[in-house]
Amino acid sequence: MDQRGKQFITDSDIDWEDLGGGVKRKIMSYDENVMMVKVAFQTGGIGSLHNHVHRQISYVDSGIFEITIQENKKILKQGDAFFIPPNLVHGAFCIEKGTLIDIFTPYREDFISK
Amino acid sequence: MDQRGKQFITDSDIDWEDLGGGVKRKIMSYDENVMMVKVAFQTGGIGSLHNHVHRQISYVDSGIFEITIQENKKILKQGDAFFIPPNLVHGAFCIEKGTLIDIFTPYREDFISK
Repeated sequence: MDQRGKQFITDSDIDWEDLGGGVKRKIMSYDENVMMVKVAFQTGGIGSLHNHVHRQISYVDSGIFEITIQENKKILKQGDAFFIPPNLVHGAFCIEKGTLIDIFTPYREDFISK
Repeated sequence: MDQRGKQFITDSDIDWEDLGGGVKRKIMSYDENVMMVKVAFQTGGIGSLHNHVHRQISYVDSGIFEITIQENKKILKQGDAFFIPPNLVHGAFCIEKGTLIDIFTPYREDFISK
C-alpha cells in the first residue's frame, strides 16, 4: 500500500519492512517535499554511518540511542530529537530498544522505488 | 535560547511556551527549510482551525486527538500521524491529554519572530 499523500495515518494499518540487523521501518506519509518514516530498532540495532542531500529531522519516540553526526556523538532518549543538515555523515546505535520518527525534506525517493 | 541549527536536542533543555487554553509548545530545532515543534495539550485543548502555505506532517507522541483536515475528521492516538498539504484548513481537539510533534517545511518564521 503506497502511503503517498495520505492525510490520516493509522499506525496499525501499515506493515513493517524488515531491513535486517534488528531494524525495521514503515513509511507513514509523504509527497515530493516531505516524508515521515518510523524506524524501530532492537537493542544493538545500527543505522550505519551514511549521508544524503536530504535534510533530516528525527524524534526519539521511545528507547535510548547514541546518535553520531560527523565527529560528534550524543546519547538521546524518548522525547529528544536530532537534526541532520544536508550531506553530514550520521548514524544511530540503539542502546535500548526503541523507535525513531525520521522526517526528510525532500522525500527519500530511494525508499519508494524499492 | 534559539534552537536554530541545533543538531542534538535534549527535550529537558528547552522551556515550554504557554499558548493558553491548555496548549503549550517548544521549538526543537529548525533551519529555513524545516522545523520541528512539540505541542502539548491538556484534555480539551484546541488547535483552532487554520491554514498556512507550509506543508505540515505531524506525529502523535502521546494522547488521543480528533484531527480535522478540511471536511474530514479522524481520531488518532499515540503512534499515528497526519499530513497537511499546503493551504488546507486543519485543526486538533485533544480528547485525552497528549503531545503532537509537528514538522513544517519550510519553517514557521512566524513562530520565531515573537
